Amino acid sequence: MRIDIITVVPELIQSPFEASILKRAIEKGHVEVYTHNLRDYSTNAYKQIDDYQFGGGAGMVMMIEPIDKCISKLKTERNYDEIIYMTPDGETFNQKIANKLSLKENIIILCGHYKGVDQRVRDHFITSEISVGDFVLSGGELAAAIVCDAIIRLIPGVLGNETSALTDSFQDNLLAPPIYTRPADYKGWKVPEILTSGNTPKIEQWREKKAIERTKQRRPDLLE
Amino acid sequence: MRIDIITVVPELIQSPFEASILKRAIEKGHVEVYTHNLRDYSTNAYKQIDDYQFGGGAGMVMMIEPIDKCISKLKTERNYDEIIYMTPDGETFNQKIANKLSLKENIIILCGHYKGVDQRVRDHFITSEISVGDFVLSGGELAAAIVCDAIIRLIPGVLGNETSALTDSFQDNLLAPPIYTRPADYKGWKVPEILTSGNTPKIEQWREKKAIERTKQRRPDLLE
Repeated sequence: MRIDIITVVPELIQSPFEASILKRAIEKGHVEVYTHNLRDYSTNAYKQIDDYQFGGGAGMVMMIEPIDKCISKLKTERNYDEIIYMTPDGETFNQKIANKLSLKENIIILCGHYKGVDQRVRDHFITSEISVGDFVLSGGELAAAIVCDAIIRLIPGVLGNETSALTDSFQDNLLAPPIYTRPADYKGWKVPEILTSGNTPKIEQWREKKAIERTKQRRPDLLE
Repeated sequence: MRIDIITVVPELIQSPFEASILKRAIEKGHVEVYTHNLRDYSTNAYKQIDDYQFGGGAGMVMMIEPIDKCISKLKTERNYDEIIYMTPDGETFNQKIANKLSLKENIIILCGHYKGVDQRVRDHFITSEISVGDFVLSGGELAAAIVCDAIIRLIPGVLGNETSALTDSFQDNLLAPPIYTRPADYKGWKVPEILTSGNTPKIEQWREKKAIERTKQRRPDLLE
């Protein structure tokens, strides 16, 4: 899989790809991630990539031309399955979308910044608009990093133990059950006895019951 | 405002705080952000902070003792309004929660990693559990960075022009209207005429109409 991220602040999302699971996924060759500085595609001497809104109002708008140039260049080099724009008014990202995207070959992620991009970019270049949630960020960069993290960890071989991803929250529309580790007694706070019983079938039953209970209590919408 | 982030991979969320708006907010003194490496609070020579699950199963669990030590130390230094745990089964983060948190003085954010934390941490130390969405990440670090970004930009003085945050998506339960910038004609794709008319009241009417239209089409749930 190859991911091309287009951004005005590439330095903002450097560290997430240089640590932990994403770093190892890249090193092992499971995924290639490239960030492209939109300023390199500016058409004037000031490296301008944003301008005032037509009609007035606070906040700058990302210009169409540098984005067109960057996307068009990438498209001459390979085919892209999706050109995603990160925006708070996009489709809300979830595990299902993550699963679907993790099967793609090449994707471009355009990070909105400032007030967002010129609407004509969305009308003519973007194939999919994704939001990570109902909140506003100073840019789409962290949202893009989140999408990358969620999909890269699903690529077979990225996680050491494949069952680890399958028992996460949301994969079966249930939240995960409570988990415990040593010590069994910490300052008088004890681990549920069943978990130290060694009775695997009973433990699995308990976990399923707890997962359903927690989902009912916290996220009944997932069970509908 | 002061934010203390507890994590097993502090290097993962270094760059978001060293770029763009968050960097300037820190430099201007609007917010202090500290990351704490949980390994520094490990109680054994191997710097161990995770262990196998009681009852078996894939994935490691973050141990209670290092977390207790780190949180307890911070609490001796100042009072905290919230001790937040980032977890996919927490309350779904939104602009309302961001607004509320942006008014706090001191908060701790504990980033889940691996399979998550020992349930007893959640039962005894955490005051609020937040999820950024219905998807699983390799850790809570990027989720914590997102929460920080969303709340820090709301602190007065952080954004150059305060009206900029107020006209964002979600602040009035409406998605933002389409925006455009120069050139007015790009490869034959034209900006809506109204926006170059100079008729401010008409432009505002058009924007409101478009915001409602877009919200109806994409997120009718916000209008309910």
